[in-house]
Amino acid sequence: MQSLPDNSEVIVARGQAKPGFMRAESTEAISPAENIKFSPTLDNSCKAKDFSSVYSKDLLPHPDGEKVTGSFLQELVSILLAYVGKTFDRSSKVLDFHHPHQLKEGLEGFSLELSDQPENLEQLLVDCRDTLKYGVKTGHPRFFNQLSSGLDVIGLAGEWLTAAANTNMFTFEISPVFILMEEIVLRKMQEKVGWVEGEGDGIFCPGGSISNLYSVLLARYIRFPEVKTRGMADLPKLVLFTSEHSHYSIKKAAAVLGIGTANVFVVKCDERGKMIPDQLESSIMRAKTAGCVPFYVNATAGTTVYGAFDPLLDVADVCAKHNLWMHVDAAWGGGLLMSKRHRGKLRGIERASSVTWNPHKMMGAPLQCAVLLVRKKGLLQECNQLKAEYLFQPDKQYDVSYDTGDKSIQCGRHVDVFKLWLMWKAKGSEGYGAQINRCLENAEYLFNSLCTRADFELVCKSKPEHSNVCFWYIPPSLAGMPPGLERDRRLHQVAPEIKAKMMEEGMVMISYQPLREKVNFFRCIFSNPVTRKEDVDFLLDEIARLGHGL
Amino acid sequence: MQSLPDNSEVIVARGQAKPGFMRAESTEAISPAENIKFSPTLDNSCKAKDFSSVYSKDLLPHPDGEKVTGSFLQELVSILLAYVGKTFDRSSKVLDFHHPHQLKEGLEGFSLELSDQPENLEQLLVDCRDTLKYGVKTGHPRFFNQLSSGLDVIGLAGEWLTAAANTNMFTFEISPVFILMEEIVLRKMQEKVGWVEGEGDGIFCPGGSISNLYSVLLARYIRFPEVKTRGMADLPKLVLFTSEHSHYSIKKAAAVLGIGTANVFVVKCDERGKMIPDQLESSIMRAKTAGCVPFYVNATAGTTVYGAFDPLLDVADVCAKHNLWMHVDAAWGGGLLMSKRHRGKLRGIERASSVTWNPHKMMGAPLQCAVLLVRKKGLLQECNQLKAEYLFQPDKQYDVSYDTGDKSIQCGRHVDVFKLWLMWKAKGSEGYGAQINRCLENAEYLFNSLCTRADFELVCKSKPEHSNVCFWYIPPSLAGMPPGLERDRRLHQVAPEIKAKMMEEGMVMISYQPLREKVNFFRCIFSNPVTRKEDVDFLLDEIARLGHGL
Repeated sequence: MQSLPDNSEVIVARGQAKPGFMRAESTEAISPAENIKFSPTLDNSCKAKDFSSVYSKDLLPHPDGEKVTGSFLQELVSILLAYVGKTFDRSSKVLDFHHPHQLKEGLEGFSLELSDQPENLEQLLVDCRDTLKYGVKTGHPRFFNQLSSGLDVIGLAGEWLTAAANTNMFTFEISPVFILMEEIVLRKMQEKVGWVEGEGDGIFCPGGSISNLYSVLLARYIRFPEVKTRGMADLPKLVLFTSEHSHYSIKKAAAVLGIGTANVFVVKCDERGKMIPDQLESSIMRAKTAGCVPFYVNATAGTTVYGAFDPLLDVADVCAKHNLWMHVDAAWGGGLLMSKRHRGKLRGIERASSVTWNPHKMMGAPLQCAVLLVRKKGLLQECNQLKAEYLFQPDKQYDVSYDTGDKSIQCGRHVDVFKLWLMWKAKGSEGYGAQINRCLENAEYLFNSLCTRADFELVCKSKPEHSNVCFWYIPPSLAGMPPGLERDRRLHQVAPEIKAKMMEEGMVMISYQPLREKVNFFRCIFSNPVTRKEDVDFLLDEIARLGHGL
Repeated sequence: MQSLPDNSEVIVARGQAKPGFMRAESTEAISPAENIKFSPTLDNSCKAKDFSSVYSKDLLPHPDGEKVTGSFLQELVSILLAYVGKTFDRSSKVLDFHHPHQLKEGLEGFSLELSDQPENLEQLLVDCRDTLKYGVKTGHPRFFNQLSSGLDVIGLAGEWLTAAANTNMFTFEISPVFILMEEIVLRKMQEKVGWVEGEGDGIFCPGGSISNLYSVLLARYIRFPEVKTRGMADLPKLVLFTSEHSHYSIKKAAAVLGIGTANVFVVKCDERGKMIPDQLESSIMRAKTAGCVPFYVNATAGTTVYGAFDPLLDVADVCAKHNLWMHVDAAWGGGLLMSKRHRGKLRGIERASSVTWNPHKMMGAPLQCAVLLVRKKGLLQECNQLKAEYLFQPDKQYDVSYDTGDKSIQCGRHVDVFKLWLMWKAKGSEGYGAQINRCLENAEYLFNSLCTRADFELVCKSKPEHSNVCFWYIPPSLAGMPPGLERDRRLHQVAPEIKAKMMEEGMVMISYQPLREKVNFFRCIFSNPVTRKEDVDFLLDEIARLGHGL
């Protein structure tokens, strides 16, 4: 592994855990933000405390635990702040790659094993530092790898408060504020979708796959309510429709719900990855002829690889004609509804019966933050409720319609709303729109750059609709080669080889994949507002540098 | 609403947001822990900063955002630390109750609404403070309301780091450390269950209901693997078995999976809430006679209301005889495996095919932290994988068996392992055992107290196995009344009326429910190691005080 001099990191390793001063020193060497240190005013001391003889039992609620709890958490916060600073520092690595076996064997004493005896807090702080050191900075301006990226300080603050509040979304009784925030944020998102006052319901879910699962569940229930009690046994052969570029969670939902992946009809897309409405319609006709019962169509607003938007108005027409539930998987594309400039790309979403929208993707909320919106009020409750008496007592003193937990297929449910509520307050809807515009401007810049460079080739020739940009790097050895099997075979290996080197060096991260007949290509994602044009330039230069000799 | 003088709180409300000093002052009045304040050493100042002209755009990644980010987060941390201190302060309220409409209308200017324009950071800090003020302190020593309670400082630290790392469990590529921690923690939990080296798999899930859903999904798949592609259409009528005291998530799973709630056979329990093995067997025979195909039995280790343990060895024998998947829902009782003194209550769990175990319950990890353990290696993967090429590329440079995301029915998955890993390190297995013993000692103390008091009546006469204790309060007006409908009718109203007053006063929280023929009774839960005998005494005295005149 190449060692980069501009990113050398001194980490106090396990077994070498030393009093706070040395730990603080080793931190200072790394990044500017790390100069921020805290000291409890009660101590009147700027030196970090030594925790090598302090254990978790000495923290609050121990009667004398107040000061040490403060110092310990402030020491942790200084580690986290240093990490935040490093995350935004372009000279810092995105990751410090090690193979699984290397991490498992223990690196510089970083041991993942758990023992019978407690470890001291000094060791825990070292472990925290090491955990971050060997992780991936998903908020780094040069992390282009995933739809979720970024490190929003307000979102972070929201998560910290959520953790301190440590409660559960099932009843108003124990989550009064968060339950109301959920209602307000969902209402706001329904407005963005275009549903009018009086319609619209929803729920925060642990990720978009579960949101998509809910949508199929609801569509099945509204058509065949007896399925809840009697199951699929007496139902006709149900089938659903989704495009070949849609997310795999639709098929997973079909598997889980007992519908079966073979009963998911995969509809053809055009060369930009958009579902072809005529193909949808002929698929439906074919299914009906075969004696199947179509009940659900998933349209995607922002596909995973190309970022394509299905033609929602046309899909809505087909759904209306055949009386099918129209779901829009806008897990990735939903964020564009916040932007006046881009929201037109989702025209027709207001006709959907349900919408998946993940604020932890384009809206930069810390993971997990995902929403399912349902147009018909009360349906979630009706479909999922079992009225457990130990939780949803009808004889409480407050309005129990706020005990929304029975809408869920979960019981306990993490508070995912607060961070989004706080971020929305902090940015305002307009600030959110501007943030999203910035990401799409970066994508356009990359697209334009690729158009001018001979050593890259675009996968889609047309301007990207979302912030995904897909491309091949063509090394000099392939430059003059005619299209064909041999070129494909060699080009297929280029992206993985570049990626492997890229991971080892750790200065940038981008994903790749094949797609149907197309061999491995890079997919660049912009969802981090920190990224600038210089990062895009860096990415292309780095790919060319790493791949030039292939 | 009664206002308690010993808990008066001065909150700077929206629109009144004032520079930091006043904010800090209003905080200082409340609790000892609030004296802990931080000041950035760069500032050389102990005064809190004024954020009324600072906005989220001024924070990192803004080039000059480093100092203000540090000050803002440290101000937030001082609010959170104050909250932690107050949580453990017995003179502080558990909750400051307001009805939904009161909170929605805005209290002292606390507004939940979102606007187009950004709000300043001063306002956000006030909002954070108000969010906590109007919430419920689930870590308070007198919060007996839910199976999840407590506020573990190390767990909190773990969540804070997790939020800063902001990554996703699907691939080793972006979660190298957390993926390995998951493997190690799951392995440790499998050892506690009693599975030998070489068997055992698992996954962290967003709650126990989803874990239970997985178990039914796996049991169905292993028996009828074609269900994944072809659905339930061609399968015989599948039925499953669970006790009348088991958690409702088993029925929810049946509804979601397309099996149907009517195909869940509910097995009778004895008076302690334990499943009767003979009843299980006769249920199975009845189902077979009716042409149904039994495939799954859920045994509960720690029922929700009584805390009962099903006789796992007997259930295992029945499952073995009829070749059924044995699941143990130890969401609540699993924690007892950490205690040498109590783990015998789960004897037989080692024979389970799968186990649900929620560390966010008895092990005090911040919510969400829930696990499904599966005995057969590789089954999760086989059942759920769809091999999405954009995520699970086979041609990566590292051992891709560590890309465990395809085992999941989710795609993105929150990092729930780190806090548990850190807590386990901090306590050691032995410390964890001691913590759990303490909770059960509290339950025994409550049980003994109830035995000696004439104004209370136990629901189960026998010593509790877990930390649930269920009882009625008998007000003087009902003391001499003979058993019968009229007494039942009036007793049924006692718990809700006491609970309503209790919520308004806010000094303690306990749950109640009816159960089958038993009218509303209180259920006390001990999962918070902070709770002491004096809190138990307080609870009973408070119930008697509030209910005396009913």
